[in-house]
Amino acid sequence: MLKKFLLILTVILTVNLTFADEGMFPLNELNHINYNKLKKMGLNLTYDQIRNDISKAVVSLGGGTGSFVSKDGLIITNHHVAYRAIQYNASAKHNYIKEGFYADSFEKELPAPGYYADIILDIVDVTNRIKSKLNDKMTDKERYETIENEIKKIEKETEAKEKNIRAEVAAFYGGKQFLLFKKMRLQDIRLVYAPPESIGAFGGDIDNFEWPRHDGDFSFLRAYVDKNGNPAPYSKDNVPYHPKHFLKIAFKPLKTNDFAFILGFPGHTDRYMTGKQIDLFLNQSIPLKLKLFTDIINMMEEEGKKNPELNIKVAFWVKALNNTKKYYEGVQAGLKRDKVVDKFYKRDKEIEKWIAKNNDMLKYKNAIPEMNKIAEQINKIEKTLTIMGYSNFVSTFGAGATIGRWAEEKKKPDLKRDPAFMERNIPRRKRRLETMQRDLIPELDKTMLSYFMKRFADLPENERPETFKKYFGNGTKEELYKKIDKTLDEFYKTTKLTDKNTRLKYFDMSEEQLKKVNDKLLHFAWDFADELKEKQDNLKGLNGKVMRIKPQVIEVINKFTGKELYPDANSTLRFTYGKICGYSPRDAVWYKPFTTLKGAIEKETGKEPFANPKKLIELYEKKDFGEYYDKTLGGVPLDFLTDNDTTGGNSGSPTLNGNGEIIGLLFDGNFESISSDYYFNPALTRSVVVDSRYILFILDKFSNAQRIIKELTIVK
Amino acid sequence: MLKKFLLILTVILTVNLTFADEGMFPLNELNHINYNKLKKMGLNLTYDQIRNDISKAVVSLGGGTGSFVSKDGLIITNHHVAYRAIQYNASAKHNYIKEGFYADSFEKELPAPGYYADIILDIVDVTNRIKSKLNDKMTDKERYETIENEIKKIEKETEAKEKNIRAEVAAFYGGKQFLLFKKMRLQDIRLVYAPPESIGAFGGDIDNFEWPRHDGDFSFLRAYVDKNGNPAPYSKDNVPYHPKHFLKIAFKPLKTNDFAFILGFPGHTDRYMTGKQIDLFLNQSIPLKLKLFTDIINMMEEEGKKNPELNIKVAFWVKALNNTKKYYEGVQAGLKRDKVVDKFYKRDKEIEKWIAKNNDMLKYKNAIPEMNKIAEQINKIEKTLTIMGYSNFVSTFGAGATIGRWAEEKKKPDLKRDPAFMERNIPRRKRRLETMQRDLIPELDKTMLSYFMKRFADLPENERPETFKKYFGNGTKEELYKKIDKTLDEFYKTTKLTDKNTRLKYFDMSEEQLKKVNDKLLHFAWDFADELKEKQDNLKGLNGKVMRIKPQVIEVINKFTGKELYPDANSTLRFTYGKICGYSPRDAVWYKPFTTLKGAIEKETGKEPFANPKKLIELYEKKDFGEYYDKTLGGVPLDFLTDNDTTGGNSGSPTLNGNGEIIGLLFDGNFESISSDYYFNPALTRSVVVDSRYILFILDKFSNAQRIIKELTIVK
Repeated sequence: MLKKFLLILTVILTVNLTFADEGMFPLNELNHINYNKLKKMGLNLTYDQIRNDISKAVVSLGGGTGSFVSKDGLIITNHHVAYRAIQYNASAKHNYIKEGFYADSFEKELPAPGYYADIILDIVDVTNRIKSKLNDKMTDKERYETIENEIKKIEKETEAKEKNIRAEVAAFYGGKQFLLFKKMRLQDIRLVYAPPESIGAFGGDIDNFEWPRHDGDFSFLRAYVDKNGNPAPYSKDNVPYHPKHFLKIAFKPLKTNDFAFILGFPGHTDRYMTGKQIDLFLNQSIPLKLKLFTDIINMMEEEGKKNPELNIKVAFWVKALNNTKKYYEGVQAGLKRDKVVDKFYKRDKEIEKWIAKNNDMLKYKNAIPEMNKIAEQINKIEKTLTIMGYSNFVSTFGAGATIGRWAEEKKKPDLKRDPAFMERNIPRRKRRLETMQRDLIPELDKTMLSYFMKRFADLPENERPETFKKYFGNGTKEELYKKIDKTLDEFYKTTKLTDKNTRLKYFDMSEEQLKKVNDKLLHFAWDFADELKEKQDNLKGLNGKVMRIKPQVIEVINKFTGKELYPDANSTLRFTYGKICGYSPRDAVWYKPFTTLKGAIEKETGKEPFANPKKLIELYEKKDFGEYYDKTLGGVPLDFLTDNDTTGGNSGSPTLNGNGEIIGLLFDGNFESISSDYYFNPALTRSVVVDSRYILFILDKFSNAQRIIKELTIVK
Repeated sequence: MLKKFLLILTVILTVNLTFADEGMFPLNELNHINYNKLKKMGLNLTYDQIRNDISKAVVSLGGGTGSFVSKDGLIITNHHVAYRAIQYNASAKHNYIKEGFYADSFEKELPAPGYYADIILDIVDVTNRIKSKLNDKMTDKERYETIENEIKKIEKETEAKEKNIRAEVAAFYGGKQFLLFKKMRLQDIRLVYAPPESIGAFGGDIDNFEWPRHDGDFSFLRAYVDKNGNPAPYSKDNVPYHPKHFLKIAFKPLKTNDFAFILGFPGHTDRYMTGKQIDLFLNQSIPLKLKLFTDIINMMEEEGKKNPELNIKVAFWVKALNNTKKYYEGVQAGLKRDKVVDKFYKRDKEIEKWIAKNNDMLKYKNAIPEMNKIAEQINKIEKTLTIMGYSNFVSTFGAGATIGRWAEEKKKPDLKRDPAFMERNIPRRKRRLETMQRDLIPELDKTMLSYFMKRFADLPENERPETFKKYFGNGTKEELYKKIDKTLDEFYKTTKLTDKNTRLKYFDMSEEQLKKVNDKLLHFAWDFADELKEKQDNLKGLNGKVMRIKPQVIEVINKFTGKELYPDANSTLRFTYGKICGYSPRDAVWYKPFTTLKGAIEKETGKEPFANPKKLIELYEKKDFGEYYDKTLGGVPLDFLTDNDTTGGNSGSPTLNGNGEIIGLLFDGNFESISSDYYFNPALTRSVVVDSRYILFILDKFSNAQRIIKELTIVK
């Protein structure tokens, strides 16, 4: 699930209101934040304690975040992050999705294949090594390729030198800085506890991105290692991992304005765009994407109406696409609401004047104009590239592309390959060729491919891909439409790409063997993939230029605005600070920052996603709240809001009080904050967190999971 | 428009929170409310001042409420109450709906035919006169008819005795008390000012019943009389009416908890039901109604899709029906939310026990059980009667029914007639036969009539009307469906009821003449109308019983609960008190009681009903707020909420401060409060009011309507 979580950190000191500053700070840049300010807000730890102790307990689960919460490797994260592990173990007999799961002993903990937990062992600045390979005579394309190659080398060398190490180099500030992350990847992850979906995903897609929420979005996993304490794949003989650091769980009343900091792995932000960039993004990219999403969803839903089995097959994708669509709708609404295009154009003009008046800023003179030129160049080819890229969403067509490209790449030494086809990524690609069988509907594939081809036909002739012209020639739109339908009919009648074993057989073939295969859809997809690769290679020049210009753009914007400096999110570990607080979504409406169990009962409809478990309703009606009742709130606390700066990838992030104890788990952002991936609005951007006290209430009173309660260190 | 406006008045004194008591008090029963309580809340007037001065400025506009606000008969009311007057005068050239209207001199004020303003001159208790005609030997049916006849006599006598008097007897407390209202009806009403619809109906049907609102729902009319000061139909020579009392407009900052009282003509409540009654209402009547509404709306919308002209014809009814549907959905949601059926059953049981223990209560022993029996008897025939009643919604069929029944009734002396066909009501009935041409679609009429007939076919044989059997016989459902379609095809091919002049010709015929007319649809409708009349006559026995039992039920419930006693709403003038306050519609959400102009701008979409006038946007952007800016709110005040007890018919009611100055005009209730027509929930029931300061802002800054500003008495 592409959930989205955001938060605020801009500092406006008014009478008694502090807005946190925006910013997702890498741990090596905590000194960009005034420590005394955080201390005043409620931080009782030093930056060293956060860097060396607290953050060491935080792990990346690949797309989500987790924390160690016991000396025996117990990990707490979101229900939606652990979802595939629950689904994998669920059966008709043991429907852990519906009923939840609780292992009351180590033996009963269940494997979670595909899951891993990455622990960051070391971070090394490799900027100088990479920059030493660059010189001023290089073209932008050479520059890009040199950087790409050097990164591949560093990663490969590091992984070869040390056992059990996963190496990853990430670019910061648009390519100003490169950091090598050395990680230990724990591969034997098991499921320990999950509440029923009616708690862990209460509100489902309807409440996604919304507030007020009543979602108990948490679960527990555990990391296992071999007997020597080293990472190892699943084995019966593995033993629980003993982390160096783990986090305590807070169990104290919370209130508005309480300090909160969050550690996690936010995926992507793009906050240093120029006016031109955001203009093209908002007014061209997003409308195109929304049109494509809407049409694809409609096609899938039409197909799903034919029978229940097809409906199940499309359901996952419809859900995922709707979620992404809602994301872009949120971006669109937010950027329009905040008039960001106007603001950025205005800011760029002011920067221009400011540079003209400041001699030491003259070096930035060309940065924004150059970036605008790049944006316009990219814009010219973007429609074609977007449609080409989205075509790979068609299962059979995407499979053909992967198979063809792999046949070409496998001939090269690993370091010379397209990174997507380096050895370390091949198992994942192969697995996808297998698992796609689950939701493959050839008839739908054909409809969708035909749809994308027709979108090419709608473009002016000079924007259509060469491969398109090769297969369909030229002609009026109507002629092309007919030709497309006829051709694809033929391709789909004869292709074997719809067969799992054939796909795997194709995947293992050499380029020469594959060329001889008589499968027109395969060659059609392959030709498109080659052209897409070529077009992307041609972009390397532009990308190289971006890596040259973007750091300057970031610097000049930062110097002009004077904001605390931090790099865009890139799935590396970040620290954000803030506080518990509500917000006003619109005139005359105030959203309070705390929800209670009462609200979940109010939402009860008897139907998913608003069907509370019977036992939970009973607890509520008998007022059997134990020690979890909060007098001030007048109920059992459930979710709360903070103004921390977070986004997708932060799912499951520990939300911590001034002592570094977990007060809740972040699991979403509000709808109003979605656009903060591009422009940060401190008045509206909020993170949505499930309260630790609700987690304990569910463990204790609902599930009677005393083994977990005992294993946790609860600070009362 | 069937808008709905409600409010709270129950008294729970907590630390610093006062809930007003529920209750819509007739002016002769103000002493049921503790005066000191109101004084503490902020009332600075005596009850006598309210009765003799303030209330005399309040007029019934027939379905809505207005107030005199100048010595020259200027009346303030809602835009939606004045809507037909605006519509009547609008043309393609002068689109007063879109552009608004402002007469800057008496000469330019426009006629509003069909409008009237009723001023209450006197209220006489006629209970004794009516009760003197009753005796214990009467059957319930005789009892009912005796009451009905005596009322007709009183009204007729009164109108004959005094010129320019309209007499109306209304029953209170379910028939315990009868009051004669003597009114002066001013018939020459003119349009003076209306804001554009984009202010006066901002938010339209989407915002209907919702909060936060941003609707400037006000307009000005003026009453004219002949040169002698007597009521007269429209004439150029008429002069402005000089009322004895008029109200001042308050222009002071308002804040939460400010006292507010409202005078107006609430239409209908039914708050003294037994458990059985509310059970049958919620679980049988409402679902049937909602099904019929939904199906009719669907049929109309289908028809409207055929072409734009048809769409305009159905639009008004679709809107009206959707509004009524939303009303019943609100009732359903609220009664379920508050678990009213359980509560009332429980209360009835407790009353039973309480009576058993209190000798002086024994006389009430049979009241609730008897009422339950009546409810069950009514329930048995309700489905049939509801479908029969709604069939008259089919224009041609309803016209046939009116024509046929009138032919029968016109033979009788006026006092012996069905009240619906008494002389005073005939012009209105005839006018409807004319105006229905506007939205008549014969094809849709046939579809709808067929739909209703098929609903009879769905009923068990013994519940089907006799007329149904006469025309369609018996048979399986499928056979009946076919027969219905075939028969109605034939009727609609030959009927002349679709022609306006024929309908008027029929209307003037004697029974004998009409019987000879060869129009099958007419006779079909007439037969049904006769049977419906007969069924309704049979109900007179039950109604007579209700009038005997209901007062006891009200008394015993009131004595048991100890609440301040007031009768259900019946379109007579009522006083309700309360204060400005927000509410929490659901967990973690707080609705503040004030909206501002900012919120209207936030809602801007460029499309109706959320398209602000350009000039208003300009005023907002230039911050050209004049003296209308409220520092505490941080904006120009627009609408506000109070917890007064109001309902449909209160539209346009003056909302008054402790000095009796108008602080705003009530125009709606919130969705959560709709069910308060049946059960009053003080935490959620709110009235929606447009702020006097917004009215003045629009008059002054937007419309520059200085003539009106000068005519008003504004208290700064």
